Amino acid sequence: MDMADDRLLDDLAAVVGDRHVIAPGHDQDSYLVDWRGRYRGKARAVVKPGSTQEVAGVVKLCAERGVAIVPQGGNTGMCGAATPDSGPRNLVIRLDRMRRIRNVSPLANSITVEAGCILAEIQAAAAATDRYFPLSLGAEGSCQIGGNISTNAGGTAVLRYGPTRELVLGLETVLPDGRVFNGLRALRKDNTGYDLKQLFIGAEGTLGIITAAVLKLFAPRRSSALALLKLQDVEQALQVMQRLRGTVGDRLGSLEIMSRSQIEVIAETVPDVAIPFALDTPWYLIIELTDALAGVNLQAPLEAVLAQAFEDGLVQDAIVASSEAQAKAIWAVRHSVSEGNKRSGYVVSHDSAVPLERQAAFATNVERRIMAAVPHARVVMHGHIGDGNIHIVAILDRARCEDTDETAALVREINEIVDDETAAQGGAISAEHGIGITNRGRLARVTDPLEIKLMKEIKTLLDPAGIMNPGKIFADG
Amino acid sequence: MDMADDRLLDDLAAVVGDRHVIAPGHDQDSYLVDWRGRYRGKARAVVKPGSTQEVAGVVKLCAERGVAIVPQGGNTGMCGAATPDSGPRNLVIRLDRMRRIRNVSPLANSITVEAGCILAEIQAAAAATDRYFPLSLGAEGSCQIGGNISTNAGGTAVLRYGPTRELVLGLETVLPDGRVFNGLRALRKDNTGYDLKQLFIGAEGTLGIITAAVLKLFAPRRSSALALLKLQDVEQALQVMQRLRGTVGDRLGSLEIMSRSQIEVIAETVPDVAIPFALDTPWYLIIELTDALAGVNLQAPLEAVLAQAFEDGLVQDAIVASSEAQAKAIWAVRHSVSEGNKRSGYVVSHDSAVPLERQAAFATNVERRIMAAVPHARVVMHGHIGDGNIHIVAILDRARCEDTDETAALVREINEIVDDETAAQGGAISAEHGIGITNRGRLARVTDPLEIKLMKEIKTLLDPAGIMNPGKIFADG
Repeated sequence: MDMADDRLLDDLAAVVGDRHVIAPGHDQDSYLVDWRGRYRGKARAVVKPGSTQEVAGVVKLCAERGVAIVPQGGNTGMCGAATPDSGPRNLVIRLDRMRRIRNVSPLANSITVEAGCILAEIQAAAAATDRYFPLSLGAEGSCQIGGNISTNAGGTAVLRYGPTRELVLGLETVLPDGRVFNGLRALRKDNTGYDLKQLFIGAEGTLGIITAAVLKLFAPRRSSALALLKLQDVEQALQVMQRLRGTVGDRLGSLEIMSRSQIEVIAETVPDVAIPFALDTPWYLIIELTDALAGVNLQAPLEAVLAQAFEDGLVQDAIVASSEAQAKAIWAVRHSVSEGNKRSGYVVSHDSAVPLERQAAFATNVERRIMAAVPHARVVMHGHIGDGNIHIVAILDRARCEDTDETAALVREINEIVDDETAAQGGAISAEHGIGITNRGRLARVTDPLEIKLMKEIKTLLDPAGIMNPGKIFADG
Repeated sequence: MDMADDRLLDDLAAVVGDRHVIAPGHDQDSYLVDWRGRYRGKARAVVKPGSTQEVAGVVKLCAERGVAIVPQGGNTGMCGAATPDSGPRNLVIRLDRMRRIRNVSPLANSITVEAGCILAEIQAAAAATDRYFPLSLGAEGSCQIGGNISTNAGGTAVLRYGPTRELVLGLETVLPDGRVFNGLRALRKDNTGYDLKQLFIGAEGTLGIITAAVLKLFAPRRSSALALLKLQDVEQALQVMQRLRGTVGDRLGSLEIMSRSQIEVIAETVPDVAIPFALDTPWYLIIELTDALAGVNLQAPLEAVLAQAFEDGLVQDAIVASSEAQAKAIWAVRHSVSEGNKRSGYVVSHDSAVPLERQAAFATNVERRIMAAVPHARVVMHGHIGDGNIHIVAILDRARCEDTDETAALVREINEIVDDETAAQGGAISAEHGIGITNRGRLARVTDPLEIKLMKEIKTLLDPAGIMNPGKIFADG
């Protein structure tokens, strides 16, 4: 290592403390690779600041020395946005030590958290004050809220509560020059000029590092009902949704679909998750209704709709959960999809959002075309059918993915099929996972050049030196 | 008029048609003054384009000729953002002819509208497909959705549905150089790069002209209950809100407060609005509960909470509406506040948002200080107490406001009291009305210079020639 590096490490240690600077060769590994093992990079150091001021100090140093910053949350992202490249001048900044819940206000329905708080911890803190924080996804036991906000995470509660953007009341962000944007107001309404926090939400760490946030809280869910439906096709799922809406209105909390092939993968690769139902139809739909009042009988209207749907041949079978334990067991299947797919082979994952009316055609067409183009691919599907976001995943045999060029060509071919169908159905190529590294080329290909230009101009405005997570969303240079 | 003007008018006519160019001296007047008569300006022409392409054509012309553009919706704004100044080179662009509802999708819960649609028309279109569009404010019979989005309008449904920003799925905007940003996707989730539409929402027409939008629809409200409460103070209102939340959770749709003095003004100046209750307490609170299901008895839990609150001395009296007509009559009082105040005198209106817990102290302190500083001021209060946004209005005797310098000094003094208390309570000076002309100085005074700098840089990025609604939000130059 050269002397400039030594000086950098010393100067970083002066800001965050010796113990919180991890040099190369000192257990950096888990921070240099994404959770799927798809991307691996290098870092001059991994640092763990303990406060906003320390983050700002580190960023200032990097700005002075031209060091590229890679902000990293729980490192659970799907597109490599938190992984450094193999360049010589990267610094990974972890927010793990900034885990305080600074304030909870049940009256104002708001909670102020530091960016390193784990999502499950925030959910628990809300519940402890008789409130509900709706963001929920498979990685919630390890993902951090800073990362959730930076990726505008979706999850299973979007249908009713919207994506993360709609849950954020205020943000504190360290800008690429080290200055601190302090927008931590907890007000429900604030029209004092341009809403600057909107820039950082969903920017995947390319415009600044989020250090704290004020989030919305909601009424607790005191009554619930859950059912697992067995269906022939996606169209049936949409019809059941329509009927439910007409009967239970906004009690509809989640609507999550899985193909039989998806659940088979979980059964094969995730032995500690039981599949509490027979796999004898093509599709499986989880419906969850919730109500803020206790003692509301949601089973009754749910069963009424299902009974009629069954009579009309819309539903092949249904299990209405009779206990919380049974509901949890069903949810566990849904939350295991990513882990299961990863264990099963080389995952080519997609995240398209298409208009609700087009989902059936989209799913059918994409599966058919992928199987025709890549016969050895295993196509599984799962997702948020109420939001128009079914994830289509092609799992390739790892043994057949040794040759990286060949694999890359296969991935490209599959991506083009998905992008083509997405465009044909009037959709977007990334509903919730973002762009990161994985989708850079696709973003450039499918997006109006005017929009790309505006995005790059905003990027250059806030980060003229290009040190903040370079190579993410847009290719370098 | 000089020849350059003639050429401009001819060229504008070539884009929008002769009939839709209004030259000076040809009934421009209503477009040159804000609805309170506070600001009056001049325009070389007022034009009414009939399509997005025509808007783009007009903007291109203005960009070439250095003509300042003032986009104008229904001209119902509170801060003069839609009124031209008295400069020699203004063009007012009205969106009245762009009134089409392009698409409604009950399945996807979305509606695509042109910017000139009147808010009440959109509400009706939603209701016609058994859906609900929640944005609702006093001016809904004449305000246009383009203006609502540009000002991120609040209204009486924010408590449950959020401000306008949270109701927008997609936007089509003509940029200051005449190019069209087409972000009209109806997808609930879209993480394909930076969310550019967020820039234009709440930008008060300074970054571009909104020409169309995709808006969210919600489950219809099939059951409702409304009560009018008589209270001693703001603190009691907050306690009633807490109790209600614990019992009816997210059925709480609106929570609107008025001071006795406010209702007295309406009684005096708006004779066609009856006050259907005696004015014998200091404060009046409208509570509205709604449910998406028919036949839900919301009166029962409401009456239970009120009965207990009455027993505990929290509530002096309450009227639970027994019919829709009675509910409408009570709402009519609330919706008449702005008109009533305007008729009553010279209105010095405020729009602070403070944390919920601080509202009682805020209202008390501000009223006391204004009355001490300006004894002849009549202080009235009304607002969205559930959002922390009570409007404090000082009405001055018009006869005493002849001298503009003296009046300006009085206004400044009152504003400083409000700003001071707003800051002391950790709030923002404009919850929903925006900045426009009225609050330019205040914005500059109370805002972190870093934020002002960022806002101005974004403005310069999108509008380097400074032609898009100059002098709004920021003073010129």
